[in-house]
Amino acid sequence: MDFIKNPAQIENRSMEIIAPYLDGLNLNFEETKIYSRIIHAAGDVDYTPLIKIHPSAIDAAKSAILRGANIFTDVEMVRTGINKRTLSKFGGEVFCKVADDDTKKFATENNITRSMAAMRIFGEKLNGAIVAVGNAPTALFEVLRLVRAENISPAVIIGVPVGFVGAADSKSELAEQNKIPYITVTGTKGGSSIAVAAVNAILYLLDNSRN
Amino acid sequence: MDFIKNPAQIENRSMEIIAPYLDGLNLNFEETKIYSRIIHAAGDVDYTPLIKIHPSAIDAAKSAILRGANIFTDVEMVRTGINKRTLSKFGGEVFCKVADDDTKKFATENNITRSMAAMRIFGEKLNGAIVAVGNAPTALFEVLRLVRAENISPAVIIGVPVGFVGAADSKSELAEQNKIPYITVTGTKGGSSIAVAAVNAILYLLDNSRN
Repeated sequence: MDFIKNPAQIENRSMEIIAPYLDGLNLNFEETKIYSRIIHAAGDVDYTPLIKIHPSAIDAAKSAILRGANIFTDVEMVRTGINKRTLSKFGGEVFCKVADDDTKKFATENNITRSMAAMRIFGEKLNGAIVAVGNAPTALFEVLRLVRAENISPAVIIGVPVGFVGAADSKSELAEQNKIPYITVTGTKGGSSIAVAAVNAILYLLDNSRN
Repeated sequence: MDFIKNPAQIENRSMEIIAPYLDGLNLNFEETKIYSRIIHAAGDVDYTPLIKIHPSAIDAAKSAILRGANIFTDVEMVRTGINKRTLSKFGGEVFCKVADDDTKKFATENNITRSMAAMRIFGEKLNGAIVAVGNAPTALFEVLRLVRAENISPAVIIGVPVGFVGAADSKSELAEQNKIPYITVTGTKGGSSIAVAAVNAILYLLDNSRN
């Protein structure tokens, strides 16, 4: 069987293949890493024009991680995929409440989704933190409501919910607000793997810069 | 805020939006569910022509689950996303060894990826089981080697690894073998969310048919 089996070689070769698709975008080194990891995670170069990184987002995310900020996710798959070993070097943890009993109760009582209820319960814990929404438009809508109506102020919102019901609208709203730096992907595409790719790209930047 | 917050409504509306993209494919009810969930999980109707379901795959997967077969995954995100509550009704569990110490040791010693090492260590446990590969082409190549060279015989292989290095080749090899029924997505696209969507679509079919 003739295929590359070395993880570092696989990663390097993948980044080489993606590089030409980023030509002409004038991305800096850090933006290139985030674009590349998202495109790699989707196996889809058509992501290139959809990715939007707010000019302050990467610095805000790095600063937050360096001071030990936590990451709050909408679904367990995003929590699972985030590189917690690297995050923990800086003191941060990853939290997800979507499967908790109090979240389910709150969601049922209010006839909202569990991932929306989970964000509302996090509430002030989101101040200064990183929010990573990979799946549920309703979670992102709720975070944006907390920002707008309750003065909650995350350090950065990585919002890439997926699908045909609300995802594109929630991400438009994210990109149109100007209070919180963000990373997003416009349109219907996205998902847990994309949220994880963006978060881990930032973690790797910090981990490498420490070595 | 004017958006749909009821989970069942969100799902139904999403399936309605996807339905026209499946016109003319002559899919049966069960195939339609799998296609729809994959397209929904990717937020990407361009998946439609890429999805390949072996004629025996759905029946094989359902039979395996009904007799309590386990599911073996390449990465933790796939394990996390699979509906374990439904699977456990039939007696099955989900296993992933990619982060285990013995897997890391085996991978380092043999200069292969951890997800490849994990599949080799599973070995005979894969007989009659469901294999779900969402991330690593090397894991799928290894499962196919076990089938070919060591007479390992999973009930079905759900193989949708993602990326630009080996993913498309590993999935071509999956679709070209004729010993094990499979579900796959040709080309570079795929990922953990896609593997989870396919597995959970089958679990929901069984769960609904029980009610």
